[in-house]
Amino acid sequence: MMLQSYIEQAAEDGNRTVAVAAAEDVEVIEAVVEAIKLNFAKFLLFGNREEILTIINERHPEMVRHENLKIIHAYTKELAADHAVKAVKFFEADVLMKGNLPTATLLKAVLSKENGLRTGNVLSHISIFEIPEFDRLLIITDAAMNIAPDLDQKAQIVRNAVAVAKKIGMVFPRVAALSAVEMVNSNMQATIDAAALTLMSKRGQIEGCVIDGPLGLDNAISAFAANHKRIDGEVAGNADILLVPNIEAGNILYKSLVYFAQAKVGAIIAGAKAPIVLTSRADSAESKLYSLALALCCVQDSKLKQTSY
Amino acid sequence: MMLQSYIEQAAEDGNRTVAVAAAEDVEVIEAVVEAIKLNFAKFLLFGNREEILTIINERHPEMVRHENLKIIHAYTKELAADHAVKAVKFFEADVLMKGNLPTATLLKAVLSKENGLRTGNVLSHISIFEIPEFDRLLIITDAAMNIAPDLDQKAQIVRNAVAVAKKIGMVFPRVAALSAVEMVNSNMQATIDAAALTLMSKRGQIEGCVIDGPLGLDNAISAFAANHKRIDGEVAGNADILLVPNIEAGNILYKSLVYFAQAKVGAIIAGAKAPIVLTSRADSAESKLYSLALALCCVQDSKLKQTSY
Repeated sequence: MMLQSYIEQAAEDGNRTVAVAAAEDVEVIEAVVEAIKLNFAKFLLFGNREEILTIINERHPEMVRHENLKIIHAYTKELAADHAVKAVKFFEADVLMKGNLPTATLLKAVLSKENGLRTGNVLSHISIFEIPEFDRLLIITDAAMNIAPDLDQKAQIVRNAVAVAKKIGMVFPRVAALSAVEMVNSNMQATIDAAALTLMSKRGQIEGCVIDGPLGLDNAISAFAANHKRIDGEVAGNADILLVPNIEAGNILYKSLVYFAQAKVGAIIAGAKAPIVLTSRADSAESKLYSLALALCCVQDSKLKQTSY
Repeated sequence: MMLQSYIEQAAEDGNRTVAVAAAEDVEVIEAVVEAIKLNFAKFLLFGNREEILTIINERHPEMVRHENLKIIHAYTKELAADHAVKAVKFFEADVLMKGNLPTATLLKAVLSKENGLRTGNVLSHISIFEIPEFDRLLIITDAAMNIAPDLDQKAQIVRNAVAVAKKIGMVFPRVAALSAVEMVNSNMQATIDAAALTLMSKRGQIEGCVIDGPLGLDNAISAFAANHKRIDGEVAGNADILLVPNIEAGNILYKSLVYFAQAKVGAIIAGAKAPIVLTSRADSAESKLYSLALALCCVQDSKLKQTSY
């Protein structure tokens, strides 16, 4: 399975709905229009109606009255976020997508105790990479959300990633808890946490996957490197999910793959009641589509009811 | 300048001497023989004479009596390390190279207060990458030595890297202090340290370079990404040296470049009285040669005196 297959999968079931918070942005509208043309989903665009309409009229006048695109006015970015989150909460949409507003504003609405999308889980960022000359997809987590997760948070980050992995077709994912070295070192918390996660997996505290760590990136993804260091086990050389020890390691790895390895990537936020697409301006149009497709593939059962808009 | 040019540069001045600690290892001998054939340097091989001779006899019998190769017996790995370090300390060698012994054993000899190679500086790992489709060499530090450097250590790590950069031809290197984000965030120590380093550069506390940070990897190395985020300055998009915030980020970036971006790399330890080559078994033969060549290029003035061996 490569990323294109999720675009095809999303297109096969175009019956989902995406709620976009603050859609008044050229690049967001472009992604939405492309997704509608690919039959990904219906879109509810929350935000400044006039600005949204101006953009659509200028660039895609044929879409103004498209049946899969609805615009719902919101007076402020905060209200756009609140309304989009409520649309997901009350089953009028299956996926939440960030538009032209600060991430913090969207997350504030997501994390609202009364009207948000909390499940009690940690929210975590999950990116799915297709890397040239590498034979399978790699999930990397968490490259953007949790700064310096503790052991419990790492366990939840793994659980979120495993849930996503299963929804995109990885039956029993192999998780590498990455560090700079393979030996447990009391001066390196990442190695201690990795060892603990490995045991948590063995004891059944983290289910549906097999975890090994601490592993260097080389031993996690290259059977040759793992053999060379005589590291055996199911995960070494065969990892599907790379758990990074901190946000800097994850973020730098993410960008290294995009900028130096010409990798393709889609990413979602997991752990809320619905998948969240947090694309940023710097993401390519292709990457935005992958993220949307992956989010749609992660919606278990559409709970869509007739919208009231 | 690409890495091959340092091999040529090393070969032009073959008058240096490398002291190898515990040379009794097939891969180490292979690297030494290749370097001698390329006229890099003379080699003093400290270690188990019988084992070293057996390897050379078996694989390169023509080298046994080569004038640029001397074997000095040492009864233990620790003694081999001590002798090799002393050879450098007393100007019989210009570069120290790790052979078949634990890194900790070599570093113990290097850091010995009486007979070591301390200068008062932090020792730091400096790797120099040639990345396909990237237009210049990139220095990454510290991917292997300092686990979680504090601000003072980061400043010294930068100074070490700047000194190396100058010796390999980067006149006034641009240093990016990497983080996951570009904004100073009180929850992310890496961003605070990066901001402090940037100011230390402005105030002349770190000389011979220009530092900017916090920068994401994308904004450090891609002018397009930097423009997109409206980050200006001399460093953004043009970094020569990437200071990583912790060992995990550096190590994962290093391995990502080698395994996913097919990058070539050489690496040395700086901050001691002489460059140290710490290649590991997992390094390719090519990478070992690059490391040796870079170390030799970093020797300012050969202080070689006639060896007593």
